[in-house]
Amino acid sequence: MKLLDKLNFPEDLKKLNENDFKVLSDEIREFLIDSVSKTGGHLASNLGVVELTLSLFKAFNFDEDKIVWDVGHQSYIYKILTGRKDGFKKLRQHNGLSGFPKRNESKYDYFDTGHSSTSISAALGIARARDLNKEKYSVISVIGDGALTGGMALEALNDVGFRKTNLIIILNDNQMSISRNVGGLSRYLNKLRIAPRYNKLKTDIHASLENSDLGKNIAGKISRVKDSIKQLVVPSMLFENMGVKYIGPIDGHDINVMTEVFIKAKEVSGPVIIHVLTQKGKGYALAEESPSKYHAVGKFDLESGELNVSPQNSYSKAFGKALTNLGAEDEKIVAITAAMPEGTGLRCFSQKYKDRFFDVGIAEEHAVTLAAGMASNGLKPVFAVYSTFLQRAFDQVLHDVCIQNLPVVFAIDRAGIVGEDGETHQGINDLSYLSMIPNIHIVTPKCLEEVEVLLKWALNRNAPVAIRYPRGGNIINTLSPIKEVVEGKWEILSEGSKVCIISTGKMVQHAMLAKDILYEKGLNPTIVNATFIKPIDKDLLEKIKKEGYNILTIEDNILKGGLGSAIKNYLSDIDYKGTVRSLGYNDEFIPQGNVDVLYKEYKLDCENISKAVIKLYD
Amino acid sequence: MKLLDKLNFPEDLKKLNENDFKVLSDEIREFLIDSVSKTGGHLASNLGVVELTLSLFKAFNFDEDKIVWDVGHQSYIYKILTGRKDGFKKLRQHNGLSGFPKRNESKYDYFDTGHSSTSISAALGIARARDLNKEKYSVISVIGDGALTGGMALEALNDVGFRKTNLIIILNDNQMSISRNVGGLSRYLNKLRIAPRYNKLKTDIHASLENSDLGKNIAGKISRVKDSIKQLVVPSMLFENMGVKYIGPIDGHDINVMTEVFIKAKEVSGPVIIHVLTQKGKGYALAEESPSKYHAVGKFDLESGELNVSPQNSYSKAFGKALTNLGAEDEKIVAITAAMPEGTGLRCFSQKYKDRFFDVGIAEEHAVTLAAGMASNGLKPVFAVYSTFLQRAFDQVLHDVCIQNLPVVFAIDRAGIVGEDGETHQGINDLSYLSMIPNIHIVTPKCLEEVEVLLKWALNRNAPVAIRYPRGGNIINTLSPIKEVVEGKWEILSEGSKVCIISTGKMVQHAMLAKDILYEKGLNPTIVNATFIKPIDKDLLEKIKKEGYNILTIEDNILKGGLGSAIKNYLSDIDYKGTVRSLGYNDEFIPQGNVDVLYKEYKLDCENISKAVIKLYD
Repeated sequence: MKLLDKLNFPEDLKKLNENDFKVLSDEIREFLIDSVSKTGGHLASNLGVVELTLSLFKAFNFDEDKIVWDVGHQSYIYKILTGRKDGFKKLRQHNGLSGFPKRNESKYDYFDTGHSSTSISAALGIARARDLNKEKYSVISVIGDGALTGGMALEALNDVGFRKTNLIIILNDNQMSISRNVGGLSRYLNKLRIAPRYNKLKTDIHASLENSDLGKNIAGKISRVKDSIKQLVVPSMLFENMGVKYIGPIDGHDINVMTEVFIKAKEVSGPVIIHVLTQKGKGYALAEESPSKYHAVGKFDLESGELNVSPQNSYSKAFGKALTNLGAEDEKIVAITAAMPEGTGLRCFSQKYKDRFFDVGIAEEHAVTLAAGMASNGLKPVFAVYSTFLQRAFDQVLHDVCIQNLPVVFAIDRAGIVGEDGETHQGINDLSYLSMIPNIHIVTPKCLEEVEVLLKWALNRNAPVAIRYPRGGNIINTLSPIKEVVEGKWEILSEGSKVCIISTGKMVQHAMLAKDILYEKGLNPTIVNATFIKPIDKDLLEKIKKEGYNILTIEDNILKGGLGSAIKNYLSDIDYKGTVRSLGYNDEFIPQGNVDVLYKEYKLDCENISKAVIKLYD
Repeated sequence: MKLLDKLNFPEDLKKLNENDFKVLSDEIREFLIDSVSKTGGHLASNLGVVELTLSLFKAFNFDEDKIVWDVGHQSYIYKILTGRKDGFKKLRQHNGLSGFPKRNESKYDYFDTGHSSTSISAALGIARARDLNKEKYSVISVIGDGALTGGMALEALNDVGFRKTNLIIILNDNQMSISRNVGGLSRYLNKLRIAPRYNKLKTDIHASLENSDLGKNIAGKISRVKDSIKQLVVPSMLFENMGVKYIGPIDGHDINVMTEVFIKAKEVSGPVIIHVLTQKGKGYALAEESPSKYHAVGKFDLESGELNVSPQNSYSKAFGKALTNLGAEDEKIVAITAAMPEGTGLRCFSQKYKDRFFDVGIAEEHAVTLAAGMASNGLKPVFAVYSTFLQRAFDQVLHDVCIQNLPVVFAIDRAGIVGEDGETHQGINDLSYLSMIPNIHIVTPKCLEEVEVLLKWALNRNAPVAIRYPRGGNIINTLSPIKEVVEGKWEILSEGSKVCIISTGKMVQHAMLAKDILYEKGLNPTIVNATFIKPIDKDLLEKIKKEGYNILTIEDNILKGGLGSAIKNYLSDIDYKGTVRSLGYNDEFIPQGNVDVLYKEYKLDCENISKAVIKLYD
């Protein structure tokens, strides 16, 4: 029987010997690969932190010590070792185990994460509360080198370094965010990586750690090791200058070394950063080779590693292709990504127009204001970003782009329900937080084929435009792109009577499916595609009012501040007296689950749409 | 005749000699102090950059070179020297000169600013556009040491250091944001401040600059100056490590030295940061002594320096006093500010409960997630922040506080129109960007006296709560605080007939004034105080529907996604057939101006309110 199956976690971990830990590492990797191949999930990042996580359990006691996992997709092993191994059968499924830390899932999850770069702030808050509560335990943040470039992580470092709060920051450096890292910090960490390894110098460092005034002592004690002094002391000054002690780099796959350093770190007074080098995808050859590809995967074939990717075209691909085409005609077009060249479909553009492509790292705020600067000086920047991550740059969209009415295009991918990543990643807020901003235009393609025509319009509008589209591809393939985009005009897809369905984006496809169901029941509503979420088509709404139709609005977005809300507000202003009903998400966070399961649950599937329409005929 | 009056700017600047510049500095200071004493405005920060700005004009040609002023409140001298001196009579008034850079005000303003920490991103965007456009000129960002701690500035530094884009960053270090700076970076800059001044070492540095591979060369060339090497080379490695060359520190009141360095900096290849030491308030003894007090002032007496502060109590003071009171009863209450201990009214709390007060620097994102961490570990954090600046942390409010439903209280000051600071600072978005987030509660005191009772409720709610209040104080003093706060229940201030006014916060006071006007005309609407913006009072709305009243909603917020919108949406759901009209801000940015002038213009004053009510009686 495997160790992994017979032990009670985390209690039994303390009993294991060195060899057991080696065996356990292998078993965990095997379990992870096997399990994720069946459910999908974040693979490469977890394979990289097997030994790191085991070392944490050797050094700390998580019944008392509190840990915050930055982003949190690398917490699978932590979940296994805190008694949640059985949950992996339903990993990331509706009502199943989350792919991220969740306070409501386990007492060992101390803080929910999902978006990048929050862990130092959260851990510092936990540590300061501990001190005010006069309690004693360690607080740990585990943060990747990619997440460290997010502005709020740097804001937190600035704060953490100012006071003497005890906090252990583990910098999990694999030179990657989802894709390869960029930026001055990353270049700096590379310098540190080639510095002499901790294990060579550990005697000296131990001595200095006892004293705990680290920087000075290392400098004194290891002055013998002449060649190393520059690399070991000088580069680390970036952190030391901020008031954070630095230890490293250490081998992130050597349990003994890590455990030793972690235990010593508990005794350090004030904040300490431990620089741990890991390999993303470690132990699965295919993932080691292509960590970006195996970052987050669907089901895959264990032997061949072949990903179960739908052969279908996706909106991301359609966008990437369209932008690459348009980029050939207009050299003022530039593309920006915040560490997501693959996911956003920009890879092709980046290869073809190397000098017009900018990956700024995990830095959405900077990305937006950079785009504003570019637009103010004659370029046509397109910032391709996931809906949920653009939330980070709400103020920059409003303050830097829209007040100045600058021609920045926001290509908003993964808009609407994204599914398995759950609450933290659902892209269901953008219509609301963007609609409220003056000067911006918002358009939504009803099908893949419409991406290029809307993108082209956006790039020629000479004002801020958001184009928003979902994860995945078409559901039906019977729609054709509109021939001509007219600002603020909606498209009537089907003329009917008495009831009008106004839907947007992917929901237009659901509406068309509902139409077929309704037709069989002898009902024939008018189907409108709200190409523009902003501005809305007031003329058409006047017309609908005149004709006395009831209205159903459908959007893959929260209802507050979305399309339905804009429509209801306008109808109220023009004293429309008919009935309006809206489908979308009520005032609650939407949990993880398969997208179609969620649509059904939240009544956005074609069956529920047709039921809602029938009521409007009553 | 003064130089300032007889010269044409900026053309004539190039003709002046050294002595002229000295005279001009004095004249500018005199003009600034005199002018701001009459209009109000940002004083201390501008007094600090007189010589810096003059040096910029000596070194650069702003018909070609482009500059971005971070925050922008220190751009008065730049405005004077680009032909806008006459505009200072109407500084910050409606249709007058802006207190910030504005592209639509002058061709010399290349990028609008207002919120902190945007300038490096924007300037980098401008510089990258320049390079793609194959143009040649310098791009300059002027950023304060306070603004440098904002996360997006650090994100930008990370990006700027990665590529070899030519960019000149002038770090205007006065050790202050509005109040004294905090944090690891600030401590680090202090180390740099005591390093040997540039002018002592300039011969060596000149030599190295010619070569332009700065860091290495300084190290080589000045190895003779043994004592200095550590301070000059080692500390600057924070920036050098990020790939940004560092020059400094230099005296920010020595025009010759600055001009020399700026001219040399144009020849540096890649990004360079020039560390300039200035004194906030320089040249006006009172402002030198109390730079925080004279940061942004109303009118003041030139001789005594006495500020024309209204003796009236303010919401900020009422909040500060209430929190200090409540803090005595509950030691779990802690307060957080992002560099605004004075403006938010927290100074008193900070003095009384030193270990429960946290100033995190200009770092709203970190502030919110820090609060979330604290709340997750048993504290009751209150983040006091201006409405406009909380926009920066929209994602953190949603993702870190509200998904986990953590008991963080947001004390949102300067909500609604703030007046003279204009578009960038109007606090008119918070009701919308907060209402859309699940789990949060939003309350608004109708008068000063109600702050404490609502704050107390918020601190006991054990969930996220925003309490929002305006700049200034009461308009009328006849209202008493509600006796008991019941979640989601509104307060009926006056029972009338046929029409119901639902207003919130300060607008309740306007509604009460309108009521008097209406009463004289024989009209008697019901007056409701919407204490809760979220949740709204559905029972009361049902009742209003039953009684067949028409409704007027009033809010000092944008209409999209605000209170009126929430009411209309609910009324549509319950098939209310009456008439609803809403007062608030339409889909446009609201410019600067006196608050009462703006209320009138945007129809939120009592006269316009009564007119709107009369129409509902027709």
